Amino acid sequence: MADLPSTAKEYRLPTFESIDSLTLGDAPVPQPGHGEVLLRLHAGPPVPSTYTSFTNPPVVSLNYRDLKIALNEYPLPLGKNIVPVSDAAGEIVATGDGCKRFTVGDRVMPNFTRDHITGGPTSAALLTAHGGAVDGFLRQYAVVPEYCLVRMPEGWSYEEGASLPCAAVTAYNALMGLIPMKGGDTVLIQGTGGVSIFGLQIAVASGARVIITSSSDAKLELAKKLGAHHLINYRTHPDWEQEVLALTNGEGVDHIVEVGGQGTLAKSFACIKFQGVISSIGFVASEGNPGNVAMLALGRGVIFRGILIGSREQFEAMCKLFEVTGVRPVVDKVFGFEEAKEAYRYLESQKHVGKVVIKID
Amino acid sequence: MADLPSTAKEYRLPTFESIDSLTLGDAPVPQPGHGEVLLRLHAGPPVPSTYTSFTNPPVVSLNYRDLKIALNEYPLPLGKNIVPVSDAAGEIVATGDGCKRFTVGDRVMPNFTRDHITGGPTSAALLTAHGGAVDGFLRQYAVVPEYCLVRMPEGWSYEEGASLPCAAVTAYNALMGLIPMKGGDTVLIQGTGGVSIFGLQIAVASGARVIITSSSDAKLELAKKLGAHHLINYRTHPDWEQEVLALTNGEGVDHIVEVGGQGTLAKSFACIKFQGVISSIGFVASEGNPGNVAMLALGRGVIFRGILIGSREQFEAMCKLFEVTGVRPVVDKVFGFEEAKEAYRYLESQKHVGKVVIKID
Amino acid sequence: MADLPSTAKEYRLPTFESIDSLTLGDAPVPQPGHGEVLLRLHAGPPVPSTYTSFTNPPVVSLNYRDLKIALNEYPLPLGKNIVPVSDAAGEIVATGDGCKRFTVGDRVMPNFTRDHITGGPTSAALLTAHGGAVDGFLRQYAVVPEYCLVRMPEGWSYEEGASLPCAAVTAYNALMGLIPMKGGDTVLIQGTGGVSIFGLQIAVASGARVIITSSSDAKLELAKKLGAHHLINYRTHPDWEQEVLALTNGEGVDHIVEVGGQGTLAKSFACIKFQGVISSIGFVASEGNPGNVAMLALGRGVIFRGILIGSREQFEAMCKLFEVTGVRPVVDKVFGFEEAKEAYRYLESQKHVGKVVIKID
Amino acid sequence: MADLPSTAKEYRLPTFESIDSLTLGDAPVPQPGHGEVLLRLHAGPPVPSTYTSFTNPPVVSLNYRDLKIALNEYPLPLGKNIVPVSDAAGEIVATGDGCKRFTVGDRVMPNFTRDHITGGPTSAALLTAHGGAVDGFLRQYAVVPEYCLVRMPEGWSYEEGASLPCAAVTAYNALMGLIPMKGGDTVLIQGTGGVSIFGLQIAVASGARVIITSSSDAKLELAKKLGAHHLINYRTHPDWEQEVLALTNGEGVDHIVEVGGQGTLAKSFACIKFQGVISSIGFVASEGNPGNVAMLALGRGVIFRGILIGSREQFEAMCKLFEVTGVRPVVDKVFGFEEAKEAYRYLESQKHVGKVVIKID
Repeated sequence: MADLPSTAKEYRLPTFESIDSLTLGDAPVPQPGHGEVLLRLHAGPPVPSTYTSFTNPPVVSLNYRDLKIALNEYPLPLGKNIVPVSDAAGEIVATGDGCKRFTVGDRVMPNFTRDHITGGPTSAALLTAHGGAVDGFLRQYAVVPEYCLVRMPEGWSYEEGASLPCAAVTAYNALMGLIPMKGGDTVLIQGTGGVSIFGLQIAVASGARVIITSSSDAKLELAKKLGAHHLINYRTHPDWEQEVLALTNGEGVDHIVEVGGQGTLAKSFACIKFQGVISSIGFVASEGNPGNVAMLALGRGVIFRGILIGSREQFEAMCKLFEVTGVRPVVDKVFGFEEAKEAYRYLESQKHVGKVVIKID
Repeated sequence: MADLPSTAKEYRLPTFESIDSLTLGDAPVPQPGHGEVLLRLHAGPPVPSTYTSFTNPPVVSLNYRDLKIALNEYPLPLGKNIVPVSDAAGEIVATGDGCKRFTVGDRVMPNFTRDHITGGPTSAALLTAHGGAVDGFLRQYAVVPEYCLVRMPEGWSYEEGASLPCAAVTAYNALMGLIPMKGGDTVLIQGTGGVSIFGLQIAVASGARVIITSSSDAKLELAKKLGAHHLINYRTHPDWEQEVLALTNGEGVDHIVEVGGQGTLAKSFACIKFQGVISSIGFVASEGNPGNVAMLALGRGVIFRGILIGSREQFEAMCKLFEVTGVRPVVDKVFGFEEAKEAYRYLESQKHVGKVVIKID
Repeated sequence: MADLPSTAKEYRLPTFESIDSLTLGDAPVPQPGHGEVLLRLHAGPPVPSTYTSFTNPPVVSLNYRDLKIALNEYPLPLGKNIVPVSDAAGEIVATGDGCKRFTVGDRVMPNFTRDHITGGPTSAALLTAHGGAVDGFLRQYAVVPEYCLVRMPEGWSYEEGASLPCAAVTAYNALMGLIPMKGGDTVLIQGTGGVSIFGLQIAVASGARVIITSSSDAKLELAKKLGAHHLINYRTHPDWEQEVLALTNGEGVDHIVEVGGQGTLAKSFACIKFQGVISSIGFVASEGNPGNVAMLALGRGVIFRGILIGSREQFEAMCKLFEVTGVRPVVDKVFGFEEAKEAYRYLESQKHVGKVVIKID
Repeated sequence: MADLPSTAKEYRLPTFESIDSLTLGDAPVPQPGHGEVLLRLHAGPPVPSTYTSFTNPPVVSLNYRDLKIALNEYPLPLGKNIVPVSDAAGEIVATGDGCKRFTVGDRVMPNFTRDHITGGPTSAALLTAHGGAVDGFLRQYAVVPEYCLVRMPEGWSYEEGASLPCAAVTAYNALMGLIPMKGGDTVLIQGTGGVSIFGLQIAVASGARVIITSSSDAKLELAKKLGAHHLINYRTHPDWEQEVLALTNGEGVDHIVEVGGQGTLAKSFACIKFQGVISSIGFVASEGNPGNVAMLALGRGVIFRGILIGSREQFEAMCKLFEVTGVRPVVDKVFGFEEAKEAYRYLESQKHVGKVVIKID
């Protein structure tokens, strides 16, 4: 560790008031203890412009959760003066004793929930969510236990790797975690946010048929390029659940990635297959009233499920899928480390399709 | 078929107004066609008084659904002038050509949803629910396709057999249909109605630990005799979800048989294990408001599921469980065929624990 | 049915001695009874030469089982004087009363095992295997119960449809029937016979990584065109299990489609992942001795499974996969109805890759 | 740790030649490091004689593996000069820093395979099998990582706790690990060794029907007392697979705990249900030849599976089952620490039913 600096930059959230709560400062570079590694977080050169057509005008990513945390609108308990941001990719620059899985030089991504290794989520594990309950990664160096790390797919940029932990693993868990989607299934993806786009890519790569909704024809066209089979503009088709039924001979879809919350829930219950799975992925929208949810669930024998990101094991399985099928994350725009607040504001503007990345140089 | 009468008695519901809509009449005894059998429905001698302690003062069964149908409060489409009641047990007295599974003399029970043979429910199958969409069994003779029949457990009375199709299969599907309950799991049973008592018996026979709630200490004592491990009177403990958490070291239970509907839903979401299964079994209660159900599901990564009775295959598997472990249905009271309205009214009084049976002599 | 002829041609096997046992004759065109349909079997115009590069020099299909039956080398009980061949595609030209799933004009394929509708195989269902226990389809007209039929994918030729029942469903069941393969998994396909090529296509369409073995570099090149990721010539690499381990960082593969029987079994047990699934698909090879199979299974905690074709439900799910992902069967060569014996002999020559089809004109 | 001695006794196996290779010596009492605990192994007062009727004349337990290791007949790689014996129960007397799951005074059992925490076995985890690859527990003090420990059921003696890690978890994994046994299933248990008796108890406690085989009517009577439904003496009924078929209407059983190895395998394949699971639990017998195992597996669509003990998570789930249903291990005989060789010899004599325990005083 001779070449490492003694101090490094980091952002913290001493208060939760606004995006301006983000506070840049200096901190000692920590030493990894037993079973821990020291991560150098950086985002390297800009991602190849595979998706440049989407990025002009620029549209953003970070996770919606990061914004909600800064605005003090996040429902779960938060640590004090935390380093924000859950999603990162970096290089291991030092290892503590007892490390067996990785070595210096490995390129890795931390799992969103540090202690959620396999199986389902637990109460205790949820208290280790990066960038919320425990320190996240908007900093130059971080020490984490090696058990929470996942190896980056071969040949990926750090921007791509840093896109995965929250949104992609959530989408993977939604589609594969209870009754695994299989090739030939029909999947309904709501919207074109981070989780939705990953859901689209995971479904297409697995041989499923995808119906996707959006209020924007431009975003729908992008979804089509990523492989979506059917596009529904829910602004021009407010009864979009009827369109979904029509596209499935009245049967409904096998899986729904539900991002709309209460407001769209009744529609989702109406266009799911009998005994299909509706995965609710977040706290996005709480307005609206689905009505009698017990009766709704009964109507088509529905399985309704809350998704709490996912395990390291799911993260690893997803990376294998991406490597085999060549799926790459859609990176919308890359900001510099000093531009963190601009990145948050860009995310807040909701113009993005895919992920907003901040380089940590 | 030489000995069969040419006509036989049956009840129909020419209108859906009240219990008095039940109308007794005569009908020709039908002939079974290809793949069909003719059932003689009767309930034989009174059930051995294994549970006499429960039956004085008498408490009732039939299914709640049968009552709701007569009262025109049932949410699903109904046939015209139907023969009511889904649950029956009888003897095959004639078979049509092409019958392979059963023969004359076999003692059988029809599956609740005639065409739900295996796998999940379907839209088409639900249109064959006995006593609702298609004719039920409050009559002396009925012709049904043999594929919908299940052999009665050895040595059971018809009263016992007739107890199973709706309530017991619902309970079995709730506990075994998605993530099967296993021995050592903890199960929360709400109330002591037909489905709940069967849920209790199925769970105990499978080696699970059962927590049961009721507003009546007397009913809780009965549940204890049937094997319940923990009793909660929700009248004296209105925060019963806290009791459940206390009984499970704060972890919550693996399975909940949810009968309370909207009113109790928020409590169920609070005391389920992370990634546990809440099975909503009916249209019982629609008052109350669980709040933001998307957020509730997210809180503990819950799986919430609507149960539409179950398949013939589940019915058969349940009968094996009952035969191996010696579980017998709790029959609360037996009425005569001419007393059908009294039986309905007894059910309406809600004093019963276990099933109310009508003899068809 | 006014336009139908009163008699039609069919092949039967009055004895099981050699390919020359195939005997062409005339039979009355049968009438469909309750729940039955009358199929007109034909193969229409030649399949579009998507794979012409593989068919020169021609290489063959039919199923190996059909050959073994003619040669009296099939281990299961056979009907007397049966119509051979299990795999067919045709048009419904008449329906009996009680038919609900299909109508005249529908293009359909019969499931291999007539009564295997869903779930696992049963002793009784296996006694309804087409072309073995019951009459198959090397004839112009056939009456079958509608419950055994599967709708052909949109836009497919009859040649393509007739390719599926035995080999494709076997491959699908092998990969999806117990622990379903998922995108990102690694699958080992042995050889390039009918089941193997479908296994390759199903795996690739589902996002899996495929390692395939063959004794022929030419056949391996074909497999590569169909999407195989890694090719192993087991003649030049007799220790092919070591190659498989090397390609998987020593971990082994998730699934093996095992066609080699006893002879290759020890190698398969050596290169499967811990708790991976080896699916044995047939009676192909019984020579060789795997050694102590109990110890072999223990070595890597292996799951070893015998595959008995599959259910109609699996057949339907597979067709959805093919429709969504655009997979088309590889048809090697098409013979005329009068050339049935030539087709058998072509199959016997083992030069084919993909399926050999006989047109029934 | 003030009260702990500085040295303590332990057995090691400096050579693998015979039972006399067991060598008693002194060793320093180790200090627990990060995430480790120090275990005091002892067996307390004699187990209450619940099963005294079985223990006169005495019959034995330890695991067969321990014997095979001492005799150098174990097929897996062994550490040098190891402390033998995998199965232990003890009290935590000191904890290193970073311990979160347990505290001093907790009564615990180590998982057989130290690093097999959840999911399936892995190549790396198997290299941490206690008493084989790494030091076991025939000693007074041992340091282990806390992640490998399981809390003992309430109110159990150390003798009972020490009975579980190898045999009981193997039986649990066999019955619950792939297609979980459910109440009403029929299970075939071969023999009355340690794994078999636990398999019997787990199955009965879960509501399953058990058929058990033995060469001894006395042992069968014992099995009957533990709940077995059907007894087969395979000496007087060498065609025991026919008896099994007769007891299941020709269908066969859902699960077989296969302990006989090659010699009995063909019989197991003949009396398993279609698509039933045969779990091969060990290296017990390699003589005999099952014939063409690929064909055997095909015959009834069998799933044949090798069991490598099981995970800590399975161990924990099993303890819940035992606590809820009141199952207690059958302890055959308890030896003193100085009598270790006598205990091994008693195990070698094969007279035992249930477990042989060595007290470490």
